Amino acid sequence: MNKTKKIDVLDKFQLFEDLWSPKVISEINDFQVKLVRLKGEFVWHSHDDTDEMFYVIDGTFQMKFREREEMLNKGQIIVIPKGVEHCPVADEMCLVMIFEPKGVINTGDTESNLRANNDIWI
Amino acid sequence: MNKTKKIDVLDKFQLFEDLWSPKVISEINDFQVKLVRLKGEFVWHSHDDTDEMFYVIDGTFQMKFREREEMLNKGQIIVIPKGVEHCPVADEMCLVMIFEPKGVINTGDTESNLRANNDIWI
Repeated sequence: MNKTKKIDVLDKFQLFEDLWSPKVISEINDFQVKLVRLKGEFVWHSHDDTDEMFYVIDGTFQMKFREREEMLNKGQIIVIPKGVEHCPVADEMCLVMIFEPKGVINTGDTESNLRANNDIWI
Repeated sequence: MNKTKKIDVLDKFQLFEDLWSPKVISEINDFQVKLVRLKGEFVWHSHDDTDEMFYVIDGTFQMKFREREEMLNKGQIIVIPKGVEHCPVADEMCLVMIFEPKGVINTGDTESNLRANNDIWI
């Protein structure tokens, strides 16, 4: 990988169609930048060892917490602190960029058939 | 800080006008998300201990390396590996989101009057 080559985020989204399956587009130290397509409801889960950040590239989704929820639109960020249970839901297709350390499993501590293969680069 | 409160990136850009002076909007583990306004030419510098990532929120800028350069438009990312000299240049105002570890100085190893105060939250 030539790290100093620019990356066009929307072009990268054209390279995959599967839902809830984050694809890696770059690394910064031990962190990765991932793209993911959300549609429907994911599973409740948490990540005991790390925070993670979601940034909405296009569309809208709802981040549900046990006590409340946030509706996120294009250009908005939410950070999920480590250990906090959350469940993303998208009525329509939503394109999201994720920042988190390498090795994070999308379903966290929850067993689910939505568990995606990790470290898949596009 | 309530980490799970959503953050609107363009709204945050309305809170400052100074150039080349990154403002922190969130943290993910030991990383920070910063916003910065670019206009004109910065200084050549490098960061010996860390990579950093630039993501263009609006506008266009050029990332100069010693051997080449990349022109970046809205929605594009570039990662600067640790130790690589670089110099951003923007003919017109460009809004950029930076992702890098807490504590990184904007001018890196270079003495300059463009050195900004660090860890300024908005």
